Amino acid sequence: MNYVSFTTPDGAASWGVSLEGRIHDLGPSGAGLAPTLKDIVADGRFGTLSEEQVREAPAFDEADVALLPPIIDPAKILCIGVNYVSHQEETGKTNQKAPTVFTRFADTQMGHLAPALMPASTTQYDYEGEMALVVSKDAYRVKAEDAWDYVAGYGAYNDFSVRDWQLAATQWTPGKNFPGTGAFGPYLVPAADLGDVDQLKLETRVNGEVRQSASVADLYFSIPQIIEYVTAWTKLSAGDVIVTGTPGGVGLFMEPKGFLSAGDVVEVEITGLGTLSNTVALDA
Amino acid sequence: MNYVSFTTPDGAASWGVSLEGRIHDLGPSGAGLAPTLKDIVADGRFGTLSEEQVREAPAFDEADVALLPPIIDPAKILCIGVNYVSHQEETGKTNQKAPTVFTRFADTQMGHLAPALMPASTTQYDYEGEMALVVSKDAYRVKAEDAWDYVAGYGAYNDFSVRDWQLAATQWTPGKNFPGTGAFGPYLVPAADLGDVDQLKLETRVNGEVRQSASVADLYFSIPQIIEYVTAWTKLSAGDVIVTGTPGGVGLFMEPKGFLSAGDVVEVEITGLGTLSNTVALDA
Repeated sequence: MNYVSFTTPDGAASWGVSLEGRIHDLGPSGAGLAPTLKDIVADGRFGTLSEEQVREAPAFDEADVALLPPIIDPAKILCIGVNYVSHQEETGKTNQKAPTVFTRFADTQMGHLAPALMPASTTQYDYEGEMALVVSKDAYRVKAEDAWDYVAGYGAYNDFSVRDWQLAATQWTPGKNFPGTGAFGPYLVPAADLGDVDQLKLETRVNGEVRQSASVADLYFSIPQIIEYVTAWTKLSAGDVIVTGTPGGVGLFMEPKGFLSAGDVVEVEITGLGTLSNTVALDA
Repeated sequence: MNYVSFTTPDGAASWGVSLEGRIHDLGPSGAGLAPTLKDIVADGRFGTLSEEQVREAPAFDEADVALLPPIIDPAKILCIGVNYVSHQEETGKTNQKAPTVFTRFADTQMGHLAPALMPASTTQYDYEGEMALVVSKDAYRVKAEDAWDYVAGYGAYNDFSVRDWQLAATQWTPGKNFPGTGAFGPYLVPAADLGDVDQLKLETRVNGEVRQSASVADLYFSIPQIIEYVTAWTKLSAGDVIVTGTPGGVGLFMEPKGFLSAGDVVEVEITGLGTLSNTVALDA
C-alpha cells in the first residue's frame, strides 16, 4: 500500500493512502486515525490497515493535493555516502572500511512534484537517486541479524547536492542542507509489501535520459549492516530516515559534467516505490 | 547573569539563574516565566531580567540540582571544525577556504558535572574545548555586519570526540554523535553581559594539566563570518547552537597521544562563562 503525507486543498497537513489515483485521507481532516504518518509508524499500525479501512475514508483526487515527504519531520535523517560500488569507483573511494554517514536537517525535505530548489550561489547542482528507509521503533545497539525488525518501510529519495558547497571543506554538511533539496516520496511503502529489497531496481532520469541504473542488491554496506553501524553510536526512533546511498552516474563525474539547470525534470524510479519527480527551480 | 537549565531535586526540568551559589527557579516549578530557557530566548526576554526579579524567585542550593545543557533541545547544533590557527597547524589543514561544518544531534548533549560517556568501542576518546553561541531569532541569509544581532549568548562547550569512529570514513558524524559527548554549560551568559568576545580566553585542562589555551580572538573564521556562512544554506532559529571550534592541543596530536581514560576530569574554562567540568565514565 502506498502511504502518503499531503496538504489538502484547504491547506491542512494530513496523511493517507494513494489508491487508484485517489488519496484517501486517514489523518486529522479525514478518518482521523492519527495526527501524522509518523504517529501511525510509531504506534505500530503502519502496514496493518486493510484496503477496506482505506476505502471507507474520504478521498481527494491526486491532482487536488500537494504531496509532502511521507515523514514530514523526522528527528534524524542519516545519509550513507559512496555506498554503491559503481559510485565508489567513479569517486575513487573504493574499499570503504566503514559506512560514510552525513546528516540532513528535516527542513531540507520536500515531496514529489515540489520544486528542487537550486541556490543562486551554485554552478554545480546535482542529483543522487537513492532508496530511503523509515525506522519503525526505538533502535539502539541493534545487531545486523535483528535489523529488519526495525524497518517500517521504504521510499524513493533524491539527495540533491550542491557540489561546490559540499566540497568547499572536508565535511559535506553545507552542500547537503540547502532548503528544498531532500526529495522524498511519492510514497512510503510497508516493508512487508515489498519483499526482498535486493530485487529492487533504481533508475534516475534527467529529462528522460537515464543517468543512474542499479540494483539495490549492489549496496556495498547492506541495510542490516547500516542499521548495526549507525545504532552503535546514535539512538534512532520511529520515523527516523536512513537514505542508503546513490549508485554511479551522478553529474559530478560525467564527461562533460552533467549538472542540473532550472527546468530540468529529475525522476527517481524504484521498483514498487513509484517514481519521484522534481523539477529544478532557481531559488533566487 | 548566569542562566542555567537544571533538574530540580524532584526530578522536574526547569531553568533559572545562578546567583551566589543559589539556583533561582524561573521555570515551571518556580516563578513560571516560561517553560524553558529556549522559550525565554525565543520571546526576547533573555538577558532583560533584572537581578530583583531573579532574587524574588524560589531558589535551590546549587548542590541540590543537576545542571542540564542550557538549551536542552536545540533544533540544530552546528559545529565548526579546525577553526583556530593553532589547531589548523596541528592537523595540517591550513588555509581553509570555507568553514568546516558538522552536526551534532541534541541527544548527544549533557550539562556541567554530568559524566562524559566514553564508549567501550573506542581507544581514542578526546576533548575539544570550545565556545558555543546560542542564536536569538530566525536567521537566514544574514550578512556578517548584521550577525551580532542574532547572538543571544554564549557558553562553554566540550565537543568530546571519539576519534577512531570520527576518522573511520571521510565524514565525522559517528565520532561526534555518541550519547553523552556534547558537554554544554554550566551557563548561558547574555551577549550584552560579556562585551567583546575577542577578549575572552579559553583553557582546557585534563586532571588540572593545561592542554588547550587560546584567545577567542584567534578564531580563523570569526563569529560574524560563521553566521553569514551557515545562514547562506540553513535557516536557524532561536535556541540553535553554533559551536565555534577548538584550538590546538587536542589529545590526538599530542606526542605521545593524550587520549582520555575513565575517571579523567576535563574542564573547559572561558572568561566570564565559568568552568565546564565533566568526568569521563565508561559507557559499557
